[in-house]
Amino acid sequence: MQDFNPTDYNIPDDFQHYPGDPAEDSLGPFFYRQAGDQLEAALSVQARHCNIMGGTHGGILMTMADYCLATPLFLDHPAGVLTVSCNCDFVGASQEGDLIIGRAEITRRGKSLAFTRCTLSVDKRTILTANGVIKPLQQR
Amino acid sequence: MQDFNPTDYNIPDDFQHYPGDPAEDSLGPFFYRQAGDQLEAALSVQARHCNIMGGTHGGILMTMADYCLATPLFLDHPAGVLTVSCNCDFVGASQEGDLIIGRAEITRRGKSLAFTRCTLSVDKRTILTANGVIKPLQQR
Amino acid sequence: MQDFNPTDYNIPDDFQHYPGDPAEDSLGPFFYRQAGDQLEAALSVQARHCNIMGGTHGGILMTMADYCLATPLFLDHPAGVLTVSCNCDFVGASQEGDLIIGRAEITRRGKSLAFTRCTLSVDKRTILTANGVIKPLQQR
Amino acid sequence: MQDFNPTDYNIPDDFQHYPGDPAEDSLGPFFYRQAGDQLEAALSVQARHCNIMGGTHGGILMTMADYCLATPLFLDHPAGVLTVSCNCDFVGASQEGDLIIGRAEITRRGKSLAFTRCTLSVDKRTILTANGVIKPLQQR
Repeated sequence: MQDFNPTDYNIPDDFQHYPGDPAEDSLGPFFYRQAGDQLEAALSVQARHCNIMGGTHGGILMTMADYCLATPLFLDHPAGVLTVSCNCDFVGASQEGDLIIGRAEITRRGKSLAFTRCTLSVDKRTILTANGVIKPLQQR
Repeated sequence: MQDFNPTDYNIPDDFQHYPGDPAEDSLGPFFYRQAGDQLEAALSVQARHCNIMGGTHGGILMTMADYCLATPLFLDHPAGVLTVSCNCDFVGASQEGDLIIGRAEITRRGKSLAFTRCTLSVDKRTILTANGVIKPLQQR
Repeated sequence: MQDFNPTDYNIPDDFQHYPGDPAEDSLGPFFYRQAGDQLEAALSVQARHCNIMGGTHGGILMTMADYCLATPLFLDHPAGVLTVSCNCDFVGASQEGDLIIGRAEITRRGKSLAFTRCTLSVDKRTILTANGVIKPLQQR
Repeated sequence: MQDFNPTDYNIPDDFQHYPGDPAEDSLGPFFYRQAGDQLEAALSVQARHCNIMGGTHGGILMTMADYCLATPLFLDHPAGVLTVSCNCDFVGASQEGDLIIGRAEITRRGKSLAFTRCTLSVDKRTILTANGVIKPLQQR
């Protein structure tokens, strides 16, 4: 199982990588850290993350949004979580070389569903806002 | 510029690849064909598209949704298009080996914005529905 | 408990009113009929449904979308249903005197959640598309 | 043109009513005030705002969300604004007698589109989160 080092991507070394998700590693890698009540995520934008116009591809940004929305719950539910619904607004642009920071917070943990929101930004400039409905799976 | 052959992915040979988008090739590759009024897209799910639980990663599905929502307009706007907003509902599961077919239609082409919807399915079972607001860029 | 007659609103008489929801009556009234696999809904736009610019207010349209998304499930779940998430795209305009027809279909009925989509239109011109995640309540 | 007084609805008297929108008055009335960078909105839930199960109707909540998302821009664009897209997550319940406070902020004002987010809450308990894409109309 491959692991990744944040500093190889110019990401502060208090971020960590959650190993074992093939798609997240192939699309990212993404890193996270706990910052008070919020989860923070980081992605260093590389050429392969960019679209034909040179901006970070919307799919990469939505993948990072999904990572931000689901990870805070996933860390508490080792049986896994499912994203039920995800809405993304593409507020601004980013490009190769940018460090994207995601910040997520849980709006509500219900019995069967949780609601989370996140913001992706580059140098404090918001580039995407997202919100999700997440279903924690029950341990069998 | 790398190109891809649909038959290498067990995708029918009347699908084609739009070359030149690094992220779409790194995340997909995705293929498309025109089917009457609809655009159809195809992705053959590989291990690297899957999450830690063995299902197709939500980020890959949202990337494919974005591809479905934007491509019908992109084909008509060589100056490019921007996704303004994208909403995805994760209706069902898929996994390695599945052939995901996306079907998109343009709900409305306005002067400055267009609205599109799409459905992703495996063997006619819907796995995701999405809708997007797309902004065609003006040729300079 | 107040009931309403569709023909008082120039709505075909095979539409019916579901009595007992104060908000739906105050905001609508809305009417529905089963049309094959789809539920159809109707609203006759009156001056009090319109915004300061003379168009049907977005809140009325979203209320009608919610009605379309939830009613197909509500009819099968007398214990009630909850809308978990609702996304609306405002595709076109409508105004006083228009007859808005909604068409909804259930994308998937899961064990704990259902997914539905709907379209609102005037004279076959789409004015809104919406999709929702709906939670049927369990009978106690 | 009818006007409304916040104190008639047990709403603090520094909230004000924007007169002239028939639907908002018929559905609300809603009130707003500027609170630093944020716009705050208020609704006092009455029986006619409630659904058949006794909770505030989702349509009323989405109408209030739309009011929160659009008003901050509307106040600056007397030519009017259009809601392009609105996504609502129903995080918690409310009922007759509750005072719902909405808080909205503009994520980004672009040249042709703006992005806003809002939260509705009762006694600091979040009951709905929403985000919208808003198009300011140009003065002719």
